[in-house]
Amino acid sequence: MESIARNRSFGGTQTVYRHASKVCDTQMTFAVYLPPQAEDGPVPALWYLSGLTCTHENAMVKGGFQEHAAEHGIALIFPDTSPRGEGVADDEAYDLGQGAGFYLNATRAPWSGHYRMYDYVLEELRDLVCGALPLNGDHGITGHSMGGHGALTLALRNPDKFRSVSAFAPIANPSQSDWGRKQLSAYLGDDESNWADHDATSLMRENGWPGDVLIDQGSDDQFFDLLRPQALADVMTRTRQAGSFRIQPGYDHSYFFVSTFAGDHVAWHAQRLFGRRSNGGKPQ
Amino acid sequence: MESIARNRSFGGTQTVYRHASKVCDTQMTFAVYLPPQAEDGPVPALWYLSGLTCTHENAMVKGGFQEHAAEHGIALIFPDTSPRGEGVADDEAYDLGQGAGFYLNATRAPWSGHYRMYDYVLEELRDLVCGALPLNGDHGITGHSMGGHGALTLALRNPDKFRSVSAFAPIANPSQSDWGRKQLSAYLGDDESNWADHDATSLMRENGWPGDVLIDQGSDDQFFDLLRPQALADVMTRTRQAGSFRIQPGYDHSYFFVSTFAGDHVAWHAQRLFGRRSNGGKPQ
Repeated sequence: MESIARNRSFGGTQTVYRHASKVCDTQMTFAVYLPPQAEDGPVPALWYLSGLTCTHENAMVKGGFQEHAAEHGIALIFPDTSPRGEGVADDEAYDLGQGAGFYLNATRAPWSGHYRMYDYVLEELRDLVCGALPLNGDHGITGHSMGGHGALTLALRNPDKFRSVSAFAPIANPSQSDWGRKQLSAYLGDDESNWADHDATSLMRENGWPGDVLIDQGSDDQFFDLLRPQALADVMTRTRQAGSFRIQPGYDHSYFFVSTFAGDHVAWHAQRLFGRRSNGGKPQ
Repeated sequence: MESIARNRSFGGTQTVYRHASKVCDTQMTFAVYLPPQAEDGPVPALWYLSGLTCTHENAMVKGGFQEHAAEHGIALIFPDTSPRGEGVADDEAYDLGQGAGFYLNATRAPWSGHYRMYDYVLEELRDLVCGALPLNGDHGITGHSMGGHGALTLALRNPDKFRSVSAFAPIANPSQSDWGRKQLSAYLGDDESNWADHDATSLMRENGWPGDVLIDQGSDDQFFDLLRPQALADVMTRTRQAGSFRIQPGYDHSYFFVSTFAGDHVAWHAQRLFGRRSNGGKPQ
C-alpha cells in the first residue's frame, strides 16, 4: 500500500493510502488514523463505514473522531464506500453503484466483478492494515447511514471478528425500504431470501449480538422513513438485546449529528475494546 | 438576514445566513454557531476568519470548534473571505480577488467597489449579528492563515472591539511576502506606507496588544516561508508582548492542524471573554 497524504492530527498521524485490491479488482483508497499511543505498540482499531455518496474522506475531515481516538489510544480505519474507477460499473442514481456498495458481495451482473465490499472490508483490508500497521486484534466497528447498515451487518454476522459495534442513523431495515430494495435486487437478485443476511433488523432477530449495541438516531433526520429505525428498535426490544437505542432530539442526518456523538461512540468502543465484553452470552 | 441551512450540533445550533451587504454591495453568506447556553441569554462571541480559497464553510465543517464552544458557552461567527457573485471583480489566481479579500478596504480599481472586508466584519456584520442574535458585547477573534492575518490586524487596530485575539499559522508579515505584496499592491496601491496597517508584524511593533496573544504555528507547515512567523515572533519578543508563540512539531497548514488546537484556542478565549484581561496595560 502506498501513502498518498499524511497529516499530523492530535499528536497522531492521519494517513490516506491507495492499494491494488484483489477482492475488488481495482485500486482502492482508504484512510487510517494512528493515535500517539501507537508509537509505543499495537493499539485497538475502530472501523468507520461511511454512507451513500461518501468516500474515505468525509468522516476523516468532518467527523471529529481523531480527538477522541487520540484520547483513548484507538486507531481509526475509514474505508471507501465502493470500488471506483474506469471499468467499474456505475449507475446514474446516487444510491446505486459507485459510492453505494452497501458492504455486500454482489452476485449479479454488471456488479459482481468489482462490488465485493463485504469481503474487502472484512478480509482483505483488515489483513492489509493489521499486517502493515501497529494494530492489535481487538477491533470495533461503527458507521453512518449505509455505513451503519454495514457496521451492523458485518458485526452481527461475525461476532468473532469484532468486540464492539455501534451505529449512527443506520439504514436499519433495507429489505423493507427504498434505501435497500432497489440495491439488494440489483446486487443480489430478486430472490428476497438472499437479502436477510444484509438486513440489520433480520440479523438482529436471528443472530443478536453477544455484547451490547449502541445506536444513535436523530429525531429530525430527513431520511427517518427510509432508515426505518423503528424496525430495528422493535426487534432489539422484543429480543431483549443488551444495548442503548437513543433518539437524539433535534438532530438531522448530517455530520453535525455524527460529530456531536462521535466522542460518545469512541469512548463506548474504548471501554469494550480495552476491557471484557459487558455481556458474555447471547441474549434471548 | 435569511437562514439558508440549520443543523443541531453539540446541543446548540449551526446556522448559515445570507444577507444583502451594503458595505460590500453584494449578497454575503456567513455562519453562526449558537451554543446551548444562548437559550438562557446572551453569550460572548468568537470570530473565526478563514484563509485563502475558503468560504464560511471550511472551518464550520472541518474545524471542530463547535464542541468546545458548546462546552464553554461561546458563539462562533464564520464570515466569508471576500465578496462574491456576478459583478464582483475577480482574478484567475487563487490568492487574489474572490476568496482572497485579505480583510481590508480596497482603494484601487477594480477592487474598491466591493472589497471592503475590514468594514464588513468589524462594523456591518458585527452590528447585524449583535442585533439579531443573543450575543453580548464581549468578542474575541481568531483565524487561520489569511484569516490569522485578519484576526491580528483587526484586533491590533481595534483593542476596544475585541477582548481577546489568537491565530493559527497567520500570514504574519504580508508586506514582506509573496502572500501579501501582490495583494496589498492590487488592493491598496504601490505606496507601501499604506500597507503597515495591514501587516500584523508592523502593528505588533507599533501598537502591541493590551492583553496576551496566542499564536500556533506548525513546524512542518508547507507555507512556512510565505507566512514569515519569525518576523512576528521576533517583534513579540523584542517588545515583550504578553502571550504565547507556539511551534507545534510535525503539524502542517491543514485543518488537521487547526482542529487539533481548536480546543486550546476556544478555552483560551473563554478565559479572557468571561474574565478580565490578563494584562491590563500596553506592554513596552
